[in-house]
Amino acid sequence: MTTGKINVSVENIFPLIKKFLYSDHEIFLRELISNGTDATLKLKHLISIGEAKVEYGNPMIEVKIDKEGKKIHIIDQGLGMTADEVEKYINQVAFSGAEEFLDKYKDSAKDSGIIGHFGLGFYSAFMVAEKVEIITKSFKDEPAAHWTCDGSPEFTLEPADKTTRGTEIILHVAEDSLEFLEDAKIKELLNKYNKFMPIPIKFGTKTQTLPKAEDAPEDAVAETITVDNIINNPNPAWTKQPTELAAEDYKAFYHELYPMQFDEPLFHIHLNVDYPFNLTGILYFPKLGSDLQIQKDKIQLYQNQVYVTDNVEGIVPEFLMMLKGVVDSPDIPLNVSRSGLQADAAVKKISNYITRKVADKLKSLFTENREDFEQKWNDIKIVLEYGMLSEDKFYEKAGAFVLYPTVDGKFHTLEELKEKLAATQTDKDGKLVILYAGNKDAQHSYIATAKDKGYEVLLLDSPIISHLIQKIEGDNSNLTFVRVDSDHIDNLIKKDETTISKLSDEEQTSLKTVLETIVPKQTYSVQLEALDSNSAPFIITQPEFMRRMKEMSQTGGGGMFGMGNMPEMYNLVVNTNSELASSILNNKDKDAQESLVKQALDLAKLSQNLLKGEALTAFVKRSFELIK
Amino acid sequence: MTTGKINVSVENIFPLIKKFLYSDHEIFLRELISNGTDATLKLKHLISIGEAKVEYGNPMIEVKIDKEGKKIHIIDQGLGMTADEVEKYINQVAFSGAEEFLDKYKDSAKDSGIIGHFGLGFYSAFMVAEKVEIITKSFKDEPAAHWTCDGSPEFTLEPADKTTRGTEIILHVAEDSLEFLEDAKIKELLNKYNKFMPIPIKFGTKTQTLPKAEDAPEDAVAETITVDNIINNPNPAWTKQPTELAAEDYKAFYHELYPMQFDEPLFHIHLNVDYPFNLTGILYFPKLGSDLQIQKDKIQLYQNQVYVTDNVEGIVPEFLMMLKGVVDSPDIPLNVSRSGLQADAAVKKISNYITRKVADKLKSLFTENREDFEQKWNDIKIVLEYGMLSEDKFYEKAGAFVLYPTVDGKFHTLEELKEKLAATQTDKDGKLVILYAGNKDAQHSYIATAKDKGYEVLLLDSPIISHLIQKIEGDNSNLTFVRVDSDHIDNLIKKDETTISKLSDEEQTSLKTVLETIVPKQTYSVQLEALDSNSAPFIITQPEFMRRMKEMSQTGGGGMFGMGNMPEMYNLVVNTNSELASSILNNKDKDAQESLVKQALDLAKLSQNLLKGEALTAFVKRSFELIK
Repeated sequence: MTTGKINVSVENIFPLIKKFLYSDHEIFLRELISNGTDATLKLKHLISIGEAKVEYGNPMIEVKIDKEGKKIHIIDQGLGMTADEVEKYINQVAFSGAEEFLDKYKDSAKDSGIIGHFGLGFYSAFMVAEKVEIITKSFKDEPAAHWTCDGSPEFTLEPADKTTRGTEIILHVAEDSLEFLEDAKIKELLNKYNKFMPIPIKFGTKTQTLPKAEDAPEDAVAETITVDNIINNPNPAWTKQPTELAAEDYKAFYHELYPMQFDEPLFHIHLNVDYPFNLTGILYFPKLGSDLQIQKDKIQLYQNQVYVTDNVEGIVPEFLMMLKGVVDSPDIPLNVSRSGLQADAAVKKISNYITRKVADKLKSLFTENREDFEQKWNDIKIVLEYGMLSEDKFYEKAGAFVLYPTVDGKFHTLEELKEKLAATQTDKDGKLVILYAGNKDAQHSYIATAKDKGYEVLLLDSPIISHLIQKIEGDNSNLTFVRVDSDHIDNLIKKDETTISKLSDEEQTSLKTVLETIVPKQTYSVQLEALDSNSAPFIITQPEFMRRMKEMSQTGGGGMFGMGNMPEMYNLVVNTNSELASSILNNKDKDAQESLVKQALDLAKLSQNLLKGEALTAFVKRSFELIK
Repeated sequence: MTTGKINVSVENIFPLIKKFLYSDHEIFLRELISNGTDATLKLKHLISIGEAKVEYGNPMIEVKIDKEGKKIHIIDQGLGMTADEVEKYINQVAFSGAEEFLDKYKDSAKDSGIIGHFGLGFYSAFMVAEKVEIITKSFKDEPAAHWTCDGSPEFTLEPADKTTRGTEIILHVAEDSLEFLEDAKIKELLNKYNKFMPIPIKFGTKTQTLPKAEDAPEDAVAETITVDNIINNPNPAWTKQPTELAAEDYKAFYHELYPMQFDEPLFHIHLNVDYPFNLTGILYFPKLGSDLQIQKDKIQLYQNQVYVTDNVEGIVPEFLMMLKGVVDSPDIPLNVSRSGLQADAAVKKISNYITRKVADKLKSLFTENREDFEQKWNDIKIVLEYGMLSEDKFYEKAGAFVLYPTVDGKFHTLEELKEKLAATQTDKDGKLVILYAGNKDAQHSYIATAKDKGYEVLLLDSPIISHLIQKIEGDNSNLTFVRVDSDHIDNLIKKDETTISKLSDEEQTSLKTVLETIVPKQTYSVQLEALDSNSAPFIITQPEFMRRMKEMSQTGGGGMFGMGNMPEMYNLVVNTNSELASSILNNKDKDAQESLVKQALDLAKLSQNLLKGEALTAFVKRSFELIK
């Protein structure tokens, strides 16, 4: 038996890196700037504990492009490296500098925000460079070092004459990566990955106009000076305490995050927890339409201010993925697959925390300024309703702030509704009947009838509302939701009143026979009702249960299988106490009787948006004849 | 100056692999099975050129799970390795075996379908395993070798007693990857990545019922046997020649690709080119609705029968991403970023080839069986229309097969339309006017009017149609599209006929004044026309230009900025020759005159779907009064 050491030579590691990183070449810049940031924060820490006796100053990281020379420079003012350290951290690939550092300064380093990838990320430079140079001078009193490697196993290491503290990385960009020599490309990357990193990053310069001196003459030319162009905000809002920030600061940060977005967020939720996991962030409720899909992938995930991804699946509960904003947590494991992420206990805790925090914030917004909350309701309801359906924990808390608007623009919680409607809308079996409409325009005549009776009608128009009311009914056995057009109003809320029919039983039978020969059976079933004589003579209704099951089946995840494709079935309610019913019954001219029924059916169809195409054209033509 | 070799030790390479591969741990299985496939295909090749004197047999690759022992075995019957080769290919990480192999057998190997990643992929095993064993016996007459490595730099290599040719990889699954010991998980991975790999892959066994012997007694128990469960199809349809396949084979392959999809594809396009690049595949036109977004990410990309991704952005032209199927090409560079991919000349060629091939196929389908093509038109039009808008090369070819259906279900090409309509629908200025409707139901009365005049009306109901007709008009200066409800029919196609108005100029002025005081000015502008006395007395129209610009602005990428949000403006066309116009003019009772105009306006609004909500409820109530 032989034993030995596996020999990994450099010719072999570059193809490995290139192969496995193919879709993400651009992260090289993030990795190198992260290293520079680490080196700077480490120095700050060493100074703070007295291990480094130098001035910290105002260090920054500079990115420079030398297009002609095909080079990119990344220069930091951090702790730098001695030649020995270059040997240790760079030549011995992936010998984790941060790990050793953390070992040494474990406790004191804990809160200083060190990323801890040093060493590993450096080699991503070879994804875009055919040759890499490092020129570095340590904060310790030792000569600077100059390391060069062209991607072959050979490197050179020699003294350098750099006199300022820190590290300069020079990438000699490879022919297949020349796009990274474009100013616009580098700007794009800096903006994507480094916008909120904690050390200022300089990319080029810009001119600034100085304010005129107070005593300057009217026609004095404004003086301009050239200043460093700092591309990042090292202290983004989410790293601050909520007490340090005013409402305006949150809005300003929203626009900083989404410069192309011109809307204002409705409100924000500041996340801030450090036990049992570390997480900060700010979530915003944007104005949302009723489209559930359109808004995803707007929340950005950071780790210690370094951008990671805009895919927060598994970390942020699904119903909140329509929000915008930032989540920053070093505790989210990136080295597990998506499916693993969803099973991960730590991640589950983070997701639960976010749900709870959002529910608490909504409750306090509702309590503190209900009027404002009501005004925003239509823009946020889709998120909340979806949350009630998908997260039981959220559902439990939602009762305290979820609102049910009426068609007249009043807003009630479910508890308020129960109390308000108990006296008027409890039916003879003691069940509270909540009436709702899905569309004020389309169901106008039915709403008007219900309001004439003194009933309240809710306006529930979200695409998933049928699922939600199904769930609420399940939890409230003495409560039922019915849409205003699902039956005649006297049947929707049955009271112990009977209206006497003007027609005898015989006349009713005879009327029904006449109607059933004229009205198409496969679509309408005729239902005679003795209603107030002033009520509409013909009304088309569609039973709640069937319609709701169909809707649930169409929007997915509920209802009954195949119901979405069933043909529409309606009831034709005929008011036997109406004058028209008598006219039809007593009309001896068969043809006139038939046209009377057809015209009445057409009018009922109009109210239910069912008169269309050829039938509508014929109706209009007939009606023009009537008035000419 | 020092020079030296960079020292990469194994402790360092594993974190590197884990870090950079975090989202894709599951690919380890694909990589190891690819290696086994390579080893088998290489052996076949060596035998074919006489370098290996062994029986090829019917080699397969077996995957076994030992849940209790926490192990996964991947066993092939390929060329195997001697101890020296293990040393060379495995211990010297990423020392590319395939590269050396190709160097040696360059020309003869060219067409034998060797993937050529051997060596690199092997190390992905350490993403899920804490210890890896290789037991391997070469086809050469040498003893078997047993290599073990627990992820530390130490490995052991000793003789083994394996007597059969090939390689067995044993993964000792790490604690954080136990999910890969589940049958269901491995089945899922095999199905995702290995479903069409060229060597049979065995995963477990299954029982098969034998057919009863002919002379068996009625009540004989059917005999069952246990057979290998082969999870892949080593010879998928796209690797065959079109001449070997019948229509049924293509359909069967569609269901093999999408087992959960119960629809039938409308037709297929077999891609098959080997110069100047290598590409095979089969694309299917599924039945599509009018939603442009819903269908993306269904086309799968393979390289030599190994699944790569279902994101074919950049490779397949955007308008064809709504299709389904498979594209297999070793020539698509995977090691460039998405933006690089779109700029890549080779990829551009592939994309152009696919566009051309699809256009050619559509043309031949149209020519060979026009009736069938017409029947499928509504299911494919959205792709073709989008293609005409987005790819000029496709637009040029599309004239030969793109159809324009009439409301009566007849289909014409643009050239046919020009010929057919020239006599009847050329206006007095010599311009050919093509009438269309967007919705047969909603525009029924306008369509009926046009048909009464003997005109053809097209049914153009795609969401992007306004963009397309805009483009077509730009290329055909003597042709114009107008929607049937954009003006009165006599104005849509102006002929040299004048109808004489029954009303004098004075009467007309007076009628107009009456109408304008009653009809709301901000929405309707009154337009008096002397039409046939039997034409509708009131018609509401909406000018083509405004409406089209609004639609283009709403569907994006055209029209005029901000037009999407402009209020709707209509014309109210009043037929001065109608009896109603005279009745209105001559009615001396102001109130009666006003209700007459309002009822007529309501009827005109009904025909244009503009009577809604409260106005509709009032209209229906009024109309019930009229007939009771």
